[in-house]
Amino acid sequence: MEASNGLRDFEETSNDDIKSFFDSSPPLKNAAEIKRKTEEFVQMNSDSEHPRRIVLVTSGGTTVPLEQRCVRYIDNFSSGHRGSTSAEYFLKAGYAVVFLYREGTYQPFCTSLPNNPLLECLQVTDKSNITARPPYEKTVKEAISNSHAATSCGTLLKLPFTTIFEYLQNLQLIASSMSSLGSRALFYLAAAVSDFYVPWESMAVHKIQSSSGPLDMRLVQVPKMLLVLRRDWAPKAFCISFKLETDKEILLKKARTALEKYNMDMVVANELLTRKEEVIVVTKGGNVVVQRDRTRVGADVEEPLIELIVEQHSAAISSAS
Amino acid sequence: MEASNGLRDFEETSNDDIKSFFDSSPPLKNAAEIKRKTEEFVQMNSDSEHPRRIVLVTSGGTTVPLEQRCVRYIDNFSSGHRGSTSAEYFLKAGYAVVFLYREGTYQPFCTSLPNNPLLECLQVTDKSNITARPPYEKTVKEAISNSHAATSCGTLLKLPFTTIFEYLQNLQLIASSMSSLGSRALFYLAAAVSDFYVPWESMAVHKIQSSSGPLDMRLVQVPKMLLVLRRDWAPKAFCISFKLETDKEILLKKARTALEKYNMDMVVANELLTRKEEVIVVTKGGNVVVQRDRTRVGADVEEPLIELIVEQHSAAISSAS
Repeated sequence: MEASNGLRDFEETSNDDIKSFFDSSPPLKNAAEIKRKTEEFVQMNSDSEHPRRIVLVTSGGTTVPLEQRCVRYIDNFSSGHRGSTSAEYFLKAGYAVVFLYREGTYQPFCTSLPNNPLLECLQVTDKSNITARPPYEKTVKEAISNSHAATSCGTLLKLPFTTIFEYLQNLQLIASSMSSLGSRALFYLAAAVSDFYVPWESMAVHKIQSSSGPLDMRLVQVPKMLLVLRRDWAPKAFCISFKLETDKEILLKKARTALEKYNMDMVVANELLTRKEEVIVVTKGGNVVVQRDRTRVGADVEEPLIELIVEQHSAAISSAS
Repeated sequence: MEASNGLRDFEETSNDDIKSFFDSSPPLKNAAEIKRKTEEFVQMNSDSEHPRRIVLVTSGGTTVPLEQRCVRYIDNFSSGHRGSTSAEYFLKAGYAVVFLYREGTYQPFCTSLPNNPLLECLQVTDKSNITARPPYEKTVKEAISNSHAATSCGTLLKLPFTTIFEYLQNLQLIASSMSSLGSRALFYLAAAVSDFYVPWESMAVHKIQSSSGPLDMRLVQVPKMLLVLRRDWAPKAFCISFKLETDKEILLKKARTALEKYNMDMVVANELLTRKEEVIVVTKGGNVVVQRDRTRVGADVEEPLIELIVEQHSAAISSAS
């Protein structure tokens, strides 16, 4: 459980590792429906004379089941704040957004609402109408309107996941549906993906029993899907991955190594305690510190971040054509 | 990771184990406020000529942090459906309810709503009013009205937790605030509490680094707080604990052992796959199978369960006085 220097996790992932991960995963429910929805979404946003750029934003943490009939699991913490806020700015910048989010985490346009908005923001009046309590009125109405507007005009497709198995199966499906887009596709992989998992076949079927002694667990590494995403699933897309660490020195080393090893276009480096104030964008051309506009109340770091990304994505599209 | 016969987890918990667990826990934020709120709530519901019975309903799963600056944790799955529905029936039966719930899980009166009720049930009209979409109108209004009514008339106190540390610290605080109630107090411990944890002091401070090898973890047993709850914190209260298992035979053995070992008044035995249809109530007088009324659409198993509990709690109060 000791923190290492963190640079040993870039071992080669072979095609066999990937195949064996997917082969041993429990089958994805609704795989056909997800494929159909994504393909329709890609088609609809590509048909016009001015086709939209399409971004896949992944958001929230993955869970690793410890039992097949799942009572216990290991979870990576993530509220989904980064992913959902970023999705909003991509929509504003004219992108179509596939939002692959962990069930129960933040959704676009809802990040400024309390935890339980239904009970905390709303009330029923004497005349039996629903109204928002005054301090929340604007935010609640905007959340509902903006979210419905984006979904109904066909520029936002929301797809939920929970486990590491579902996340990676979805990623593969969506990436293959987006492969026809070439450089118009953007992958913004903000989800906090588990590094370790318990292979489904070696998992306890029933609930693990507590006994008088301690519980020893062995988890194995999740194959590095970024390698395959870049190499096979989406070789022409603009790819952005994320690193989150509590130690800044480890963070920058790992971000730089990920950039090179996985051939990413950008790695967004987050330090746990300051990640809402600033991030460091690691690119082949060097590091860029991106900070939120502290002169404006409520300004997000995602606003200048997405601006920078759109700019660099534009440059990549120009140089590809 | 093999399931054992499940009967070895009733080892003695000593006062030293308990003390050492609490001493090594990170301090509870807002401890003073929680204590004040609970004592006021107990006072307010005890002042009148006909004092109310007070039940502590615990709900949802606990998390076990794996790192001090928590990125990863082990989670016990629980939607909080059982606890929140039960709280509703206790309120209907005239009890005052302290609802100790896992942040983000179901709250009383909201169990029949979709996952994201704000976005799925509501819309903004042309005149910029908020309305519920027709199929949800009744449910949404009832959820908001009933929940606000119970909170504002002082019969429902909601307190959130997330980690195993917060859960047990809250339990101790609330139990000691309720100790003056004698047999009028009821403990309905439906939360899915982790059996294992990583002691705070032995926990990695920074994020655990993945390396080329597997991750080995050692978790130790959480001390059995039910023993202390019954013996020291609430000796005169009516105490109900829960067991959830995937295997029925193990389930009934463990429920019976818990009843005797912890001197519970009841153990509610849940089998994972059928727990919304029926539960088995294990008491000193024998086992009672409680089933939901299948002739009524939407009838809950909690309705007859709470009825049975109220009956037996009444009998216990009578025999105590």
